[in-house]
Amino acid sequence: MNITIIGAGNVGYHLSQRLVEVGHRIQQIFSRKTDKVIRISKIIKAEPIDNLSSVKKGADLYILAVKDDAIGSVAEKIRKKIPGNSWVVHTSGSTPSTVLEPYFENYGVFYPLQTFSMNRMAEFTDIPFLVDANKELMKERLYSLAETISPKVYRIDDEARAKIHVSAVFVNNFTNHLYAIAEDMLRSEELPIEVISPLIQETAKKIRFHSPQTVQTGPAVRGDEATIQRHLEYLEKFPKYKEVYELLTGSIGGMYGS
Amino acid sequence: MNITIIGAGNVGYHLSQRLVEVGHRIQQIFSRKTDKVIRISKIIKAEPIDNLSSVKKGADLYILAVKDDAIGSVAEKIRKKIPGNSWVVHTSGSTPSTVLEPYFENYGVFYPLQTFSMNRMAEFTDIPFLVDANKELMKERLYSLAETISPKVYRIDDEARAKIHVSAVFVNNFTNHLYAIAEDMLRSEELPIEVISPLIQETAKKIRFHSPQTVQTGPAVRGDEATIQRHLEYLEKFPKYKEVYELLTGSIGGMYGS
Repeated sequence: MNITIIGAGNVGYHLSQRLVEVGHRIQQIFSRKTDKVIRISKIIKAEPIDNLSSVKKGADLYILAVKDDAIGSVAEKIRKKIPGNSWVVHTSGSTPSTVLEPYFENYGVFYPLQTFSMNRMAEFTDIPFLVDANKELMKERLYSLAETISPKVYRIDDEARAKIHVSAVFVNNFTNHLYAIAEDMLRSEELPIEVISPLIQETAKKIRFHSPQTVQTGPAVRGDEATIQRHLEYLEKFPKYKEVYELLTGSIGGMYGS
Repeated sequence: MNITIIGAGNVGYHLSQRLVEVGHRIQQIFSRKTDKVIRISKIIKAEPIDNLSSVKKGADLYILAVKDDAIGSVAEKIRKKIPGNSWVVHTSGSTPSTVLEPYFENYGVFYPLQTFSMNRMAEFTDIPFLVDANKELMKERLYSLAETISPKVYRIDDEARAKIHVSAVFVNNFTNHLYAIAEDMLRSEELPIEVISPLIQETAKKIRFHSPQTVQTGPAVRGDEATIQRHLEYLEKFPKYKEVYELLTGSIGGMYGS
């Protein structure tokens, strides 16, 4: 396919390279940051643009890989440059596809359910793609496109995607915050922070083979009040983290009825 | 060393095999479950015992790999069979070494900071060992012993270990609970639960190279009230998980001042 990518942040950066890698052509790539878009455009052999008014018609698909709250305004701007029957998708997990409806007749979502970082390789063969579109033909074509870059493709509508996104917040944003709390406590105690890293890795790996409910451990699920009390006393010095400890301990107790 | 292991649960099972693998001898291994201890004893060529009154003197070290609340009573029982100057350690992160003080002159802790499962290989070269003892010589010998099975050995006293254990609860028990919440929500919505697994893996892998505070993402750190409101409305049907969402969203906001 001949694709234009709007946005060269974490998603646009990795996705555009992957698309080229598997044989698609990137017509144009946009970023407001001129240096950045020129750098990326060389890798993917696309025309770099740093102004939305330079977006050209003729791409088979326009992928808006921009911040959630910018999708609507970007769609409005590029609509002035490309026909209303162009195929346009965004890459957001939490934004309904219908945000594009006022501007385009054929719209959808092309959502890679993964966390991307500028300086980490993205392993696309392990990234689930959640695709949707308002027209059946477009849905099929998006599905086929996703299959060229990942073996894990799902047809997921706006409502289901929104639900999945909430779960993603729990396992990504909230989990990372727990890591940050642990690191902050260890650092402020001048204890080695790397000591918990293997545990973090193994906790994640384990659930590839076991349902997390079946492998829950710790004082909360054991109902080990003595240990919980010792922990709470220690956490007096971190009152905000104490609140998190109390709530999650109660939540675990509630799930297992201990 | 010539070692007796009391307990053939997750820790005793993996630790005894690793000790044999690197050249130590297991004198006896105890489990109340006769079948189980016979099975393990064959792998590690140790005498299986299913009664604590069969514990023999003569081991260089006795490792109590039993549940936290059983350590004291097990120590009391084996004290009747072995001399008071025997070297005795437990493997618990949250229990002070001094729980052994009433029974033995030489006591300590040999704590592998990892989550073990019966049916998963334990990669000891990646497991931090936190060791401590009440005598300097024993401390040195425990340190050397730990170094034979893992390159990551730390001298950590009771107080520091207790602090590290609280952090371990956050990144292991609480994180696993977040996985369980996500799985429960997806399952009750009849959505594919495997769709979030790559995200879980990548979230963990990322912090091997980045401080978690520096890679925090999501609506809470962005201060994206519209998305948070949508999530909270959806979570009306999971009131307990809504509480978790609200608290952790607030906690993230507090950490980043958003």
